[in-house]
Amino acid sequence: MTTRRDFLTKGLLAGAGALMIPELAKAVAKESLPASAPKISLKKDTVILLQGDSITDMGRDRKSNQCNTFQMLGNGYPLFLAGQLLASHPTDNLKIYNRGVSGDKVFQLRDRWEVDCIAFQPDVLSILVGVNDYWHTLIGGYKGTLADYENEYRDLLRYTKEKLPKVQLVIGEPYALRGGSAIEDTKWFPMFDGYRAVARKLADEFQAVFVPYQAGYDAAIKKMHTRYWCADGVHPDLPGRQLMANLWLEAAGLA
Amino acid sequence: MTTRRDFLTKGLLAGAGALMIPELAKAVAKESLPASAPKISLKKDTVILLQGDSITDMGRDRKSNQCNTFQMLGNGYPLFLAGQLLASHPTDNLKIYNRGVSGDKVFQLRDRWEVDCIAFQPDVLSILVGVNDYWHTLIGGYKGTLADYENEYRDLLRYTKEKLPKVQLVIGEPYALRGGSAIEDTKWFPMFDGYRAVARKLADEFQAVFVPYQAGYDAAIKKMHTRYWCADGVHPDLPGRQLMANLWLEAAGLA
Repeated sequence: MTTRRDFLTKGLLAGAGALMIPELAKAVAKESLPASAPKISLKKDTVILLQGDSITDMGRDRKSNQCNTFQMLGNGYPLFLAGQLLASHPTDNLKIYNRGVSGDKVFQLRDRWEVDCIAFQPDVLSILVGVNDYWHTLIGGYKGTLADYENEYRDLLRYTKEKLPKVQLVIGEPYALRGGSAIEDTKWFPMFDGYRAVARKLADEFQAVFVPYQAGYDAAIKKMHTRYWCADGVHPDLPGRQLMANLWLEAAGLA
Repeated sequence: MTTRRDFLTKGLLAGAGALMIPELAKAVAKESLPASAPKISLKKDTVILLQGDSITDMGRDRKSNQCNTFQMLGNGYPLFLAGQLLASHPTDNLKIYNRGVSGDKVFQLRDRWEVDCIAFQPDVLSILVGVNDYWHTLIGGYKGTLADYENEYRDLLRYTKEKLPKVQLVIGEPYALRGGSAIEDTKWFPMFDGYRAVARKLADEFQAVFVPYQAGYDAAIKKMHTRYWCADGVHPDLPGRQLMANLWLEAAGLA
Protein backbone atom coordinates (compact mmCIF):
# COMPACT_ATOMS: atom_id res chain seq x y z
CA MET A 1 0.00 0.00 0.00
CA THR A 2 1.27 3.44 -0.86
CA THR A 3 0.68 5.89 1.96
CA ARG A 4 0.71 9.62 1.57
CA ARG A 5 4.04 9.72 3.36
CA ASP A 6 5.43 7.27 0.81
CA PHE A 7 4.32 9.58 -1.94
CA LEU A 8 6.01 12.50 -0.28
CA THR A 9 9.28 10.79 0.48
CA LYS A 10 9.51 8.23 -2.30
CA GLY A 11 7.61 9.99 -5.02
CA LEU A 12 7.82 13.72 -5.04
CA LEU A 13 11.00 14.03 -3.08
CA ALA A 14 12.94 11.06 -4.35
CA GLY A 15 15.85 11.45 -6.75
CA ALA A 16 17.37 14.53 -8.30
CA GLY A 17 15.82 17.17 -10.50
CA ALA A 18 13.19 19.81 -10.07
CA LEU A 19 11.21 20.05 -6.87
CA MET A 20 8.34 22.17 -8.05
CA ILE A 21 7.43 24.26 -5.05
CA PRO A 22 3.67 24.44 -5.63
CA GLU A 23 3.61 20.62 -5.78
CA LEU A 24 5.75 20.28 -2.68
CA ALA A 25 3.46 22.69 -0.83
CA LYS A 26 0.43 20.72 -1.98
CA ALA A 27 1.89 17.39 -0.85
CA VAL A 28 2.96 18.77 2.52
CA ALA A 29 -0.44 20.35 3.16
CA LYS A 30 -2.15 17.09 2.23
CA GLU A 31 0.13 15.18 4.56
CA SER A 32 -0.05 17.62 7.46
CA LEU A 33 -3.60 18.91 7.43
CA PRO A 34 -6.95 17.14 7.75
CA ALA A 35 -9.23 17.28 4.72
CA SER A 36 -11.66 19.28 6.84
CA ALA A 37 -9.09 22.02 7.62
CA PRO A 38 -10.52 25.53 7.30
CA LYS A 39 -9.69 27.64 4.25
CA ILE A 40 -9.53 31.36 3.61
CA SER A 41 -12.06 33.10 1.43
CA LEU A 42 -11.23 36.37 -0.24
CA LYS A 43 -13.83 38.91 -1.16
CA LYS A 44 -13.79 42.39 -2.60
CA ASP A 45 -11.76 44.78 -0.40
CA THR A 46 -10.37 42.03 1.85
CA VAL A 47 -7.76 43.40 4.26
CA ILE A 48 -4.96 40.93 4.95
CA LEU A 49 -2.61 41.62 7.86
CA LEU A 50 0.60 39.66 8.34
CA GLN A 51 1.87 39.65 11.91
CA GLY A 52 4.86 38.15 13.61
CA ASP A 53 8.54 38.55 14.35
CA SER A 54 11.66 39.07 12.21
CA ILE A 55 10.68 36.31 9.79
CA THR A 56 7.68 38.42 8.81
CA ASP A 57 9.26 41.85 9.39
CA MET A 58 12.23 41.15 7.08
CA GLY A 59 13.31 44.47 5.68
CA ARG A 60 9.99 46.32 5.67
CA ASP A 61 9.98 50.07 6.12
CA ARG A 62 8.44 50.61 9.56
CA LYS A 63 7.23 54.06 8.49
CA SER A 64 5.20 52.75 5.57
CA ASN A 65 1.43 52.78 5.82
CA GLN A 66 0.67 52.04 2.21
CA CYS A 67 -0.61 48.53 1.57
CA ASN A 68 0.75 46.34 -1.24
CA THR A 69 3.99 48.27 -1.60
CA PHE A 70 7.56 47.00 -1.37
CA GLN A 71 8.10 49.36 1.57
CA MET A 72 5.17 47.88 3.47
CA LEU A 73 5.84 44.28 2.55
CA GLY A 74 9.60 44.08 3.03
CA ASN A 75 11.41 41.26 1.29
CA GLY A 76 10.43 38.20 3.27
CA TYR A 77 7.67 35.66 2.61
CA PRO A 78 5.04 38.47 2.81
CA LEU A 79 6.38 39.94 -0.46
CA PHE A 80 6.23 36.64 -2.34
CA LEU A 81 2.83 35.89 -0.86
CA ALA A 82 1.52 39.32 -1.82
CA GLY A 83 2.92 39.00 -5.35
CA GLN A 84 0.97 35.83 -5.92
CA LEU A 85 -2.21 36.98 -4.18
CA LEU A 86 -2.32 40.30 -6.01
CA ALA A 87 -1.57 38.74 -9.38
CA SER A 88 -4.14 35.97 -8.93
CA HIS A 89 -6.93 38.13 -7.47
CA PRO A 90 -6.82 41.30 -9.55
CA THR A 91 -10.48 42.13 -9.15
CA ASP A 92 -10.61 41.85 -5.33
CA ASN A 93 -8.91 45.12 -4.44
CA LEU A 94 -6.92 43.27 -1.76
CA LYS A 95 -5.12 45.38 0.82
CA ILE A 96 -2.09 43.59 2.24
CA TYR A 97 -0.19 44.92 5.24
CA ASN A 98 2.87 43.66 7.10
CA ARG A 99 3.35 44.51 10.78
CA GLY A 100 5.95 41.93 11.81
CA VAL A 101 8.51 43.25 14.31
CA SER A 102 11.91 41.65 14.71
CA GLY A 103 12.47 39.94 18.05
CA ASP A 104 8.83 39.79 19.06
CA LYS A 105 7.39 37.16 21.35
CA VAL A 106 3.66 36.74 22.01
CA PHE A 107 3.51 39.24 24.85
CA GLN A 108 5.15 41.84 22.63
CA LEU A 109 2.51 41.33 19.97
CA ARG A 110 -0.06 41.91 22.70
CA ASP A 111 1.63 45.17 23.72
CA ARG A 112 1.17 46.65 20.27
CA TRP A 113 -2.01 44.83 19.23
CA GLU A 114 -4.42 47.78 19.32
CA VAL A 115 -2.35 49.86 16.92
CA ASP A 116 -0.74 47.10 14.91
CA CYS A 117 -3.67 44.73 14.54
CA ILE A 118 -7.13 45.80 15.71
CA ALA A 119 -6.82 49.24 14.12
CA PHE A 120 -6.37 47.62 10.70
CA GLN A 121 -9.70 45.77 11.05
CA PRO A 122 -8.26 42.86 9.11
CA ASP A 123 -10.52 40.34 7.39
CA VAL A 124 -7.63 37.89 7.30
CA LEU A 125 -5.04 37.89 10.08
CA SER A 126 -1.94 35.73 9.71
CA ILE A 127 0.33 35.28 12.73
CA LEU A 128 3.71 33.58 12.90
CA VAL A 129 5.18 33.79 16.40
CA GLY A 130 6.94 31.46 18.80
CA VAL A 131 10.56 31.01 17.84
CA ASN A 132 11.64 33.90 20.07
CA ASP A 133 9.44 32.70 22.94
CA TYR A 134 11.83 29.78 23.13
CA TRP A 135 15.06 31.19 21.64
CA HIS A 136 15.21 34.12 24.03
CA THR A 137 15.20 31.72 26.99
CA LEU A 138 18.49 30.42 25.60
CA ILE A 139 20.16 33.69 24.68
CA GLY A 140 18.22 36.62 26.09
CA GLY A 141 17.55 35.72 29.71
CA TYR A 142 13.81 35.53 28.95
CA LYS A 143 11.93 33.60 31.63
CA GLY A 144 8.72 32.70 29.76
CA THR A 145 7.80 29.02 29.65
CA LEU A 146 5.98 26.87 27.13
CA ALA A 147 2.87 27.27 29.30
CA ASP A 148 3.28 31.05 29.11
CA TYR A 149 3.49 30.83 25.34
CA GLU A 150 0.29 28.82 25.22
CA ASN A 151 -1.62 31.00 27.68
CA GLU A 152 -0.48 34.30 26.22
CA TYR A 153 -1.13 33.16 22.67
CA ARG A 154 -4.62 31.90 23.59
CA ASP A 155 -5.41 35.18 25.33
CA LEU A 156 -4.23 37.10 22.30
CA LEU A 157 -6.42 35.05 19.99
CA ARG A 158 -9.44 35.28 22.32
CA TYR A 159 -9.09 39.03 22.53
CA THR A 160 -8.69 39.25 18.78
CA LYS A 161 -11.86 37.24 18.14
CA GLU A 162 -13.71 39.40 20.66
CA LYS A 163 -12.69 42.56 18.86
CA LEU A 164 -12.85 41.10 15.36
CA PRO A 165 -15.48 38.36 15.49
CA LYS A 166 -15.45 37.74 11.75
CA VAL A 167 -11.69 37.68 11.25
CA GLN A 168 -10.30 34.67 9.38
CA LEU A 169 -7.21 33.48 11.21
CA VAL A 170 -4.04 31.93 9.82
CA ILE A 171 -1.58 30.54 12.35
CA GLY A 172 1.88 29.70 11.12
CA GLU A 173 3.80 26.83 12.66
CA PRO A 174 6.92 28.11 14.38
CA TYR A 175 9.91 26.21 13.05
CA ALA A 176 13.57 25.65 13.81
CA LEU A 177 15.75 23.85 11.31
CA ARG A 178 18.42 21.36 12.24
CA GLY A 179 21.64 22.28 10.48
CA GLY A 180 20.97 26.02 10.80
CA SER A 181 23.86 28.02 12.22
CA ALA A 182 21.75 29.34 15.12
CA ILE A 183 20.29 25.96 16.05
CA GLU A 184 22.20 23.83 18.52
CA ASP A 185 20.27 20.57 18.44
CA THR A 186 20.68 19.54 22.06
CA LYS A 187 19.46 22.94 23.26
CA TRP A 188 16.48 23.15 20.88
CA PHE A 189 15.07 19.67 20.69
CA PRO A 190 12.80 18.22 21.83
CA MET A 191 11.86 21.33 23.85
CA PHE A 192 11.02 23.48 20.86
CA ASP A 193 8.65 20.86 19.47
CA GLY A 194 6.26 21.86 22.23
CA TYR A 195 5.90 25.34 20.71
CA ARG A 196 4.97 23.82 17.37
CA ALA A 197 2.39 21.62 19.06
CA VAL A 198 0.87 24.59 20.90
CA ALA A 199 0.50 26.57 17.69
CA ARG A 200 -1.27 23.65 16.05
CA LYS A 201 -3.53 23.14 19.08
CA LEU A 202 -4.50 26.81 19.07
CA ALA A 203 -5.18 26.72 15.36
CA ASP A 204 -7.63 23.91 16.02
CA GLU A 205 -9.23 25.70 18.96
CA PHE A 206 -9.76 28.88 16.95
CA GLN A 207 -10.66 27.24 13.63
CA ALA A 208 -7.62 28.89 12.11
CA VAL A 209 -5.80 27.83 8.97
CA PHE A 210 -2.57 26.18 10.12
CA VAL A 211 0.50 26.59 7.91
CA PRO A 212 2.88 23.62 8.40
CA TYR A 213 6.15 25.46 7.88
CA GLN A 214 8.23 22.89 9.76
CA ALA A 215 6.93 20.03 7.64
CA GLY A 216 7.49 22.10 4.50
CA TYR A 217 11.07 22.86 5.37
CA ASP A 218 11.70 19.28 6.46
CA ALA A 219 10.53 18.07 3.05
CA ALA A 220 12.64 20.68 1.23
CA ILE A 221 15.72 19.86 3.28
CA LYS A 222 15.55 16.27 2.10
CA LYS A 223 16.57 17.68 -1.28
CA MET A 224 19.10 20.31 -0.25
CA HIS A 225 20.69 21.27 3.03
CA THR A 226 19.29 23.78 5.49
CA ARG A 227 21.87 26.42 4.51
CA TYR A 228 20.29 26.70 1.09
CA TRP A 229 16.81 27.46 2.39
CA CYS A 230 17.45 29.18 5.68
CA ALA A 231 21.08 29.47 6.69
CA ASP A 232 20.65 30.12 10.40
CA GLY A 233 17.70 27.77 10.74
CA VAL A 234 15.26 30.59 11.56
CA HIS A 235 15.51 33.46 9.05
CA PRO A 236 14.80 32.23 5.54
CA ASP A 237 16.97 33.00 2.53
CA LEU A 238 15.38 33.67 -0.84
CA PRO A 239 14.43 30.04 -1.62
CA GLY A 240 12.92 29.64 1.85
CA ARG A 241 10.86 32.81 1.49
CA GLN A 242 9.34 31.56 -1.75
CA LEU A 243 8.71 28.16 -0.13
CA MET A 244 6.91 29.76 2.83
CA ALA A 245 4.69 31.85 0.56
CA ASN A 246 3.67 28.74 -1.33
CA LEU A 247 3.00 26.79 1.88
CA TRP A 248 0.79 29.63 3.12
CA LEU A 249 -1.19 29.77 -0.13
CA GLU A 250 -1.67 26.01 -0.19
CA ALA A 251 -2.75 25.79 3.46
CA ALA A 252 -5.17 28.68 2.94
CA GLY A 253 -6.70 27.01 -0.09
CA LEU A 254 -5.59 29.87 -2.33
CA ALA A 255 -2.90 28.13 -4.39
CA MET B 1 -15.49 24.50 -32.57
CA THR B 2 -13.71 25.89 -29.56
CA THR B 3 -10.45 27.49 -30.54
CA ARG B 4 -7.62 28.19 -28.17
CA ARG B 5 -8.48 31.86 -28.27
CA ASP B 6 -12.03 31.02 -27.21
CA PHE B 7 -10.63 29.16 -24.24
CA LEU B 8 -8.50 32.11 -23.29
CA THR B 9 -11.14 34.76 -23.67
CA LYS B 10 -14.33 32.86 -22.88
CA GLY B 11 -12.99 30.25 -20.48
CA LEU B 12 -10.09 31.27 -18.35
CA LEU B 13 -10.64 34.97 -18.55
CA ALA B 14 -14.39 35.19 -18.49
CA GLY B 15 -16.27 36.31 -15.40
CA ALA B 16 -15.03 37.43 -12.01
CA GLY B 17 -12.99 35.62 -9.41
CA ALA B 18 -9.46 34.33 -9.23
CA LEU B 19 -7.19 34.51 -12.25
CA MET B 20 -4.54 32.05 -11.23
CA ILE B 21 -1.38 33.40 -12.71
CA PRO B 22 0.32 30.08 -13.50
CA GLU B 23 -2.78 29.07 -15.45
CA LEU B 24 -2.95 32.40 -17.25
CA ALA B 25 0.72 32.09 -18.18
CA LYS B 26 0.14 28.57 -19.45
CA ALA B 27 -2.84 29.61 -21.56
CA VAL B 28 -1.02 32.60 -23.02
CA ALA B 29 2.06 30.54 -23.87
CA LYS B 30 -0.10 27.91 -25.53
CA GLU B 31 -1.89 30.59 -27.51
CA SER B 32 1.20 32.56 -28.48
CA LEU B 33 3.90 29.97 -29.04
CA PRO B 34 4.13 27.02 -31.43
CA ALA B 35 4.23 23.57 -29.84
CA SER B 36 7.74 23.21 -31.23
CA ALA B 37 9.04 26.34 -29.45
CA PRO B 38 12.45 25.82 -27.81
CA LYS B 39 12.66 25.34 -24.05
CA ILE B 40 15.38 25.97 -21.51
CA SER B 41 17.20 23.13 -19.81
CA LEU B 42 18.86 23.66 -16.47
CA LYS B 43 21.81 21.65 -15.30
CA LYS B 44 24.08 21.72 -12.33
CA ASP B 45 25.86 25.08 -12.00
CA THR B 46 23.80 26.79 -14.69
CA VAL B 47 24.53 30.52 -14.88
CA ILE B 48 21.47 32.60 -15.74
CA LEU B 49 21.96 36.23 -16.76
CA LEU B 50 19.05 38.64 -17.05
CA GLN B 51 19.71 41.57 -19.33
CA GLY B 52 17.71 44.58 -20.35
CA ASP B 53 16.59 48.05 -19.41
CA SER B 54 14.80 49.54 -16.39
CA ILE B 55 12.15 46.81 -16.38
CA THR B 56 14.91 44.33 -15.56
CA ASP B 57 17.17 46.71 -13.57
CA MET B 58 14.37 47.72 -11.15
CA GLY B 59 16.08 48.62 -7.91
CA ARG B 60 19.11 46.34 -8.07
CA ASP B 61 22.31 47.44 -6.39
CA ARG B 62 24.69 48.18 -9.27
CA LYS B 63 27.66 47.42 -7.02
CA SER B 64 26.53 43.89 -6.21
CA ASN B 65 28.42 40.98 -7.73
CA GLN B 66 26.86 38.23 -5.66
CA CYS B 67 24.41 36.04 -7.51
CA ASN B 68 20.99 35.12 -6.08
CA THR B 69 20.89 38.01 -3.60
CA PHE B 70 18.29 40.72 -3.20
CA GLN B 71 20.99 43.29 -3.98
CA MET B 72 21.85 41.60 -7.26
CA LEU B 73 18.28 40.82 -8.28
CA GLY B 74 16.54 44.07 -7.40
CA ASN B 75 12.80 43.94 -6.95
CA GLY B 76 11.49 43.52 -10.47
CA TYR B 77 10.51 40.35 -12.30
CA PRO B 78 14.06 38.97 -11.88
CA LEU B 79 13.46 38.64 -8.13
CA PHE B 80 10.18 36.74 -8.53
CA LEU B 81 11.69 34.61 -11.27
CA ALA B 82 14.74 33.82 -9.14
CA GLY B 83 12.59 32.98 -6.11
CA GLN B 84 10.71 30.38 -8.09
CA LEU B 85 13.75 29.00 -9.93
CA LEU B 86 15.84 28.68 -6.78
CA ALA B 87 13.03 27.12 -4.78
CA SER B 88 12.15 24.63 -7.51
CA HIS B 89 15.70 23.64 -8.46
CA PRO B 90 17.49 23.35 -5.12
CA THR B 91 20.03 20.79 -6.30
CA ASP B 92 21.20 22.68 -9.39
CA ASN B 93 23.37 25.31 -7.72
CA LEU B 94 21.90 27.92 -10.05
CA LYS B 95 23.68 31.26 -10.26
CA ILE B 96 21.32 34.06 -11.22
CA TYR B 97 22.58 37.55 -12.13
CA ASN B 98 20.79 40.73 -13.14
CA ARG B 99 22.54 43.28 -15.32
CA GLY B 100 19.64 45.35 -16.56
CA VAL B 101 20.38 49.08 -16.85
CA SER B 102 17.65 51.66 -16.81
CA GLY B 103 17.19 53.54 -20.08
CA ASP B 104 19.12 51.11 -22.24
CA LYS B 105 18.49 50.58 -25.90
CA VAL B 106 20.10 47.81 -27.96
CA PHE B 107 23.20 49.83 -28.85
CA GLN B 108 23.76 50.53 -25.17
CA LEU B 109 23.64 46.84 -24.34
CA ARG B 110 26.27 46.37 -27.05
CA ASP B 111 28.48 49.03 -25.47
CA ARG B 112 28.66 47.14 -22.19
CA TRP B 113 28.32 43.60 -23.53
CA GLU B 114 31.86 42.36 -22.84
CA VAL B 115 31.73 43.21 -19.15
CA ASP B 116 28.04 42.80 -18.52
CA CYS B 117 27.35 39.69 -20.56
CA ILE B 118 30.25 37.77 -22.11
CA ALA B 119 32.33 37.95 -18.93
CA PHE B 120 29.59 36.09 -17.04
CA GLN B 121 29.76 33.16 -19.49
CA PRO B 122 26.05 32.61 -19.04
CA ASP B 123 24.45 29.27 -19.90
CA VAL B 124 21.08 31.01 -20.12
CA LEU B 125 20.87 34.60 -21.32
CA SER B 126 17.55 36.41 -21.10
CA ILE B 127 17.17 39.77 -22.85
CA LEU B 128 14.29 42.21 -22.69
CA VAL B 129 15.01 45.34 -24.74
CA GLY B 130 13.17 47.51 -27.18
CA VAL B 131 10.78 49.83 -25.43
CA ASN B 132 13.39 52.59 -25.19
CA ASP B 133 14.46 52.06 -28.79
CA TYR B 134 11.05 53.44 -29.65
CA TRP B 135 10.16 55.59 -26.62
CA HIS B 136 13.32 57.67 -26.83
CA THR B 137 12.44 58.69 -30.37
CA LEU B 138 9.35 60.31 -28.84
CA ILE B 139 10.89 61.91 -25.79
CA GLY B 140 14.68 61.77 -25.97
CA GLY B 141 15.55 62.98 -29.44
CA TYR B 142 16.84 59.51 -30.31
CA LYS B 143 17.11 58.97 -34.04
CA GLY B 144 17.19 55.19 -34.26
CA THR B 145 14.63 53.52 -36.50
CA LEU B 146 12.85 50.19 -36.39
CA ALA B 147 15.38 48.94 -38.92
CA ASP B 148 18.19 50.06 -36.60
CA TYR B 149 16.59 48.12 -33.76
CA GLU B 150 16.42 45.01 -35.90
CA ASN B 151 19.93 45.29 -37.26
CA GLU B 152 21.56 46.19 -33.97
CA TYR B 153 19.68 43.47 -32.11
CA ARG B 154 20.60 40.86 -34.74
CA ASP B 155 24.25 41.92 -34.58
CA LEU B 156 24.19 41.67 -30.80
CA LEU B 157 22.73 38.17 -30.93
CA ARG B 158 25.13 37.05 -33.65
CA TYR B 159 28.08 38.31 -31.67
CA THR B 160 26.75 36.65 -28.53
CA LYS B 161 26.38 33.28 -30.26
CA GLU B 162 29.88 33.64 -31.70
CA LYS B 163 31.34 34.21 -28.24
CA LEU B 164 28.98 31.85 -26.40
CA PRO B 165 28.04 29.17 -28.93
CA LYS B 166 26.19 27.03 -26.39
CA VAL B 167 24.22 29.79 -24.71
CA GLN B 168 20.47 29.22 -24.41
CA LEU B 169 18.70 32.44 -25.35
CA VAL B 170 15.48 33.90 -23.99
CA ILE B 171 14.10 36.95 -25.80
CA GLY B 172 11.36 38.89 -24.07
CA GLU B 173 8.71 40.62 -26.12
CA PRO B 174 8.89 44.37 -25.64
CA TYR B 175 5.50 45.63 -24.60
CA ALA B 176 3.59 48.88 -24.17
CA LEU B 177 0.23 48.88 -22.46
CA ARG B 178 -2.70 50.95 -23.57
CA GLY B 179 -4.08 52.84 -20.59
CA GLY B 180 -0.65 53.32 -19.04
CA SER B 181 0.15 56.90 -18.03
CA ALA B 182 3.24 57.04 -20.28
CA ILE B 183 1.51 55.59 -23.33
CA GLU B 184 -0.22 57.98 -25.69
CA ASP B 185 -1.99 55.63 -28.05
CA THR B 186 -1.73 57.68 -31.21
CA LYS B 187 2.01 58.12 -30.75
CA TRP B 188 2.74 54.49 -29.87
CA PHE B 189 0.48 52.42 -32.11
CA PRO B 190 0.78 50.86 -34.57
CA MET B 191 4.46 51.92 -34.76
CA PHE B 192 5.54 50.11 -31.62
CA ASP B 193 4.03 46.83 -32.80
CA GLY B 194 6.93 46.62 -35.24
CA TYR B 195 9.38 46.31 -32.33
CA ARG B 196 7.41 43.42 -30.92
CA ALA B 197 7.42 41.73 -34.30
CA VAL B 198 11.16 42.17 -34.67
CA ALA B 199 11.82 40.59 -31.28
CA ARG B 200 9.71 37.59 -32.23
CA LYS B 201 11.41 37.28 -35.61
CA LEU B 202 14.83 37.35 -33.99
CA ALA B 203 13.76 34.77 -31.42
CA ASP B 204 12.86 32.49 -34.33
CA GLU B 205 16.11 33.20 -36.17
CA PHE B 206 18.22 32.41 -33.12
CA GLN B 207 16.13 29.52 -31.78
CA ALA B 208 15.50 31.53 -28.65
CA VAL B 209 12.69 31.07 -26.19
CA PHE B 210 10.24 33.92 -26.81
CA VAL B 211 8.36 35.32 -23.81
CA PRO B 212 5.03 36.81 -24.93
CA TYR B 213 4.80 39.62 -22.38
CA GLN B 214 2.42 41.73 -24.46
CA ALA B 215 -0.04 38.86 -24.84
CA GLY B 216 0.25 38.08 -21.13
CA TYR B 217 -0.50 41.64 -20.11
CA ASP B 218 -3.29 41.92 -22.66
CA ALA B 219 -4.94 38.86 -21.11
CA ALA B 220 -4.47 40.18 -17.56
CA ILE B 221 -5.83 43.59 -18.48
CA LYS B 222 -9.07 41.97 -19.60
CA LYS B 223 -9.62 41.31 -15.86
CA MET B 224 -8.29 44.53 -14.34
CA HIS B 225 -7.11 47.82 -15.77
CA THR B 226 -3.54 48.60 -16.81
CA ARG B 227 -2.94 50.77 -13.72
CA TYR B 228 -3.20 47.69 -11.51
CA TRP B 229 -0.51 45.75 -13.34
CA CYS B 230 1.75 48.42 -14.68
CA ALA B 231 0.66 51.98 -14.01
CA ASP B 232 2.70 53.78 -16.65
CA GLY B 233 2.30 51.03 -19.21
CA VAL B 234 6.00 50.14 -19.18
CA HIS B 235 7.31 49.66 -15.62
CA PRO B 236 5.40 46.89 -13.86
CA ASP B 237 3.95 47.23 -10.40
CA LEU B 238 4.03 44.27 -8.02
CA PRO B 239 1.26 42.25 -9.71
CA GLY B 240 2.89 42.80 -13.11
CA ARG B 241 6.28 41.67 -11.86
CA GLN B 242 4.82 38.41 -10.62
CA LEU B 243 2.95 37.99 -13.89
CA MET B 244 6.13 38.49 -15.93
CA ALA B 245 8.06 35.96 -13.86
CA ASN B 246 5.34 33.39 -14.46
CA LEU B 247 5.21 34.13 -18.19
CA TRP B 248 9.00 33.66 -18.41
CA LEU B 249 8.88 30.33 -16.55
CA GLU B 250 6.05 29.06 -18.70
CA ALA B 251 7.65 30.10 -21.99
CA ALA B 252 10.94 28.53 -20.88
CA GLY B 253 9.22 25.25 -20.02
CA LEU B 254 10.23 25.60 -16.38
CA ALA B 255 6.84 26.28 -14.79
